[in-house]
Amino acid sequence: MTHQHPKGTRDFFPAEFAALHHIEDAWRTASINAGFEEIEGPTFEHLNLYTVKSGEGIVSELFSFKRAGGDVDYALRPEFTPTLARMAAAKGRSLSLPTKWFGIPSHFRAERPQRGRLREFKQWNVDLLGIDAPSADAEIIATAVAALATLGLTSDDVVVRISHRSVVTSMLLEGGLDESQLDQALALLDKKEKMDDAAFATKLEEAGLPSSAFAQFDGDAVVSHPGLDILQTELERWGVSDWCAFDFSIVRGLAYYTGIVFEIHERSGAERAIAGGGRYDKLIEMFGGPSCPAVGFGMGDVVLSLVLKDKGLLEDGDTYLPTPEVFVVSASDEGDALLPSIVASLRTSGIHARQSYKATRNVGKLVTEATKAKAKHVIILGGELEQGNVVIKNLESGKQIELALDAVVEHFS
Amino acid sequence: MTHQHPKGTRDFFPAEFAALHHIEDAWRTASINAGFEEIEGPTFEHLNLYTVKSGEGIVSELFSFKRAGGDVDYALRPEFTPTLARMAAAKGRSLSLPTKWFGIPSHFRAERPQRGRLREFKQWNVDLLGIDAPSADAEIIATAVAALATLGLTSDDVVVRISHRSVVTSMLLEGGLDESQLDQALALLDKKEKMDDAAFATKLEEAGLPSSAFAQFDGDAVVSHPGLDILQTELERWGVSDWCAFDFSIVRGLAYYTGIVFEIHERSGAERAIAGGGRYDKLIEMFGGPSCPAVGFGMGDVVLSLVLKDKGLLEDGDTYLPTPEVFVVSASDEGDALLPSIVASLRTSGIHARQSYKATRNVGKLVTEATKAKAKHVIILGGELEQGNVVIKNLESGKQIELALDAVVEHFS
Repeated sequence: MTHQHPKGTRDFFPAEFAALHHIEDAWRTASINAGFEEIEGPTFEHLNLYTVKSGEGIVSELFSFKRAGGDVDYALRPEFTPTLARMAAAKGRSLSLPTKWFGIPSHFRAERPQRGRLREFKQWNVDLLGIDAPSADAEIIATAVAALATLGLTSDDVVVRISHRSVVTSMLLEGGLDESQLDQALALLDKKEKMDDAAFATKLEEAGLPSSAFAQFDGDAVVSHPGLDILQTELERWGVSDWCAFDFSIVRGLAYYTGIVFEIHERSGAERAIAGGGRYDKLIEMFGGPSCPAVGFGMGDVVLSLVLKDKGLLEDGDTYLPTPEVFVVSASDEGDALLPSIVASLRTSGIHARQSYKATRNVGKLVTEATKAKAKHVIILGGELEQGNVVIKNLESGKQIELALDAVVEHFS
Repeated sequence: MTHQHPKGTRDFFPAEFAALHHIEDAWRTASINAGFEEIEGPTFEHLNLYTVKSGEGIVSELFSFKRAGGDVDYALRPEFTPTLARMAAAKGRSLSLPTKWFGIPSHFRAERPQRGRLREFKQWNVDLLGIDAPSADAEIIATAVAALATLGLTSDDVVVRISHRSVVTSMLLEGGLDESQLDQALALLDKKEKMDDAAFATKLEEAGLPSSAFAQFDGDAVVSHPGLDILQTELERWGVSDWCAFDFSIVRGLAYYTGIVFEIHERSGAERAIAGGGRYDKLIEMFGGPSCPAVGFGMGDVVLSLVLKDKGLLEDGDTYLPTPEVFVVSASDEGDALLPSIVASLRTSGIHARQSYKATRNVGKLVTEATKAKAKHVIILGGELEQGNVVIKNLESGKQIELALDAVVEHFS
């Protein structure tokens, strides 16, 4: 009898976890350096937190359940923004603004697993609440870029493709659409890039939308708009304009965006979007909170890991595992009895100390084990104990010293 | 319309998260220093991973679900040991022994929430695989103790209450029970402490068990056994014997324990158990892996937090929040334009740098904001910019210097 992890989920053995941790470290450091504070919510929420905004149609994309004998519907969270909006709304007027929050929780989607898309994944969420200004939009983008740069990516590798809901909306209205056609037009624009021109024209015809209103979004024809000049200036001030390009084909499916929307992509178009976000100035109010402008993004670990691996920027996870400062081995009965107290004292003093569990008295084999564990030093409890001493060998330099037993912990502190 | 988090779950705002992080840091450091490597599994598993060992009765304690349109039963993990056993079994003979793993995942129980018992909680799991020796039992206990000591607890505050499945079993058999009565006897022994003597006697009578076999577990009558002498020696060698006491009333409900079992309790009996664990030498084989001895424990965040708070060892979470090295404020138009690039450069250089979002030109108010944010330094972009300079004030010493704008980042690096 063997058991497998559920389809679309992952087992993180130490090497895999270390690679994930390497990414999470970059996320956390970029967030903290930028003054964001970490939050976390429940792994599951009331189902209606998701259906109230997105309708019942979203239920098929969620893992939903009831407690045995209970009548409340729950769902594993598919994204963090509703939780964040709920938490912000719960604070109400006591929420001091601006509020800068980030989190690195797990998320869940009941979709068919594909490359870059799993049923459980980690996502970095960063949100800046209370500032309705292009400077805040640029700061959010700069925070995402800072983490990517820490991981070794450059503006040659990735691009932040930026659009703006109200700019695109006003372009569509100026192009001859009326308000009632906007939702449909945005949905088609979202898919434009994945079709050839003929297919897109057919779709427009089917929807009864005038193709003239969409000509302005063709190719690289339009990538600027007066409404984006201030944002462009702010992106320059934040030092990330090289990483960014305006691109009105970016729509983002989610209904709650009100201002800029953006996605981060590998430049050549390899893999899915690395991150996506935008401004959502109405959402917190919709969840019962005060009127509160907000901008944020989410960046999952799955696509980012693929892009980093594609570019040789994510080593085999073993590289990122913590390695011991000290490895303690015993080659004598007296050593066996003393080993635990030495190891325990080193650990209590904050030192990463491992030991051999082998019964061998062969010092060469024991030192080989320490080397394999990538220890910096090996402490050998051997015949020198008769004089109250131990041997300490530096495994990098090969140098060896003899030290009094009771001076060992201080030596490494 | 307002939304609440589901009953028995928690919202972690920054202060609450910082307090949790403070505990997780102690757990992670104790694990890494002791040579354990971090792993993680899926948040939900196939339901049969839990029912195969514990029977269908466990289903009511689990949050279980299917994917919409799917026919596979899943459950949110209530504990980590089955996942760990599954992962170890998956490695099969390629698992190098000893293997030392830890994890700090979320767990879920569909029970009625009570003090110390929530529906979602974090649990530190530590497991040592491949060593069947009292020294490994003691090392596991020493690792738990190391984290508790880091958090400020002493052996006066908490006690590791240790029993041994086979010692208790042999005592019961010697006391006159037969094999078929053992499960029932262990279950009653588990509840003995929560009843008075009369109630316990009644229960024994109802179960048809001879009370004579249980006299040896009364009060403090028996707290040693020849089978525990080596463990006692190892606990002394590992420096934790002051923290430990043998106590045969500790049974642990879980069926998979085969050797020592232990719980960590607040000494006076306040709150529930802080941690529980034991040896489970058959479990990995039962999950399809090789025969592999194993010992481990789980420590949740909920009871531990209560005990730490009871003893004044867990501050208000604000204390643990990261504070900025630098807070940048602008009191001029030129400063407004320069602020983002200075802030971005500081952050890119690894410095925790915040800024004011206020429009005021009142330097006093801006410096007050920096002080409130607990910044070490404030950089003031004011009139000195005309000479290409900024003012840097050390908020601890009150000392103030003027520095060339382009020397600022290097000054803090």
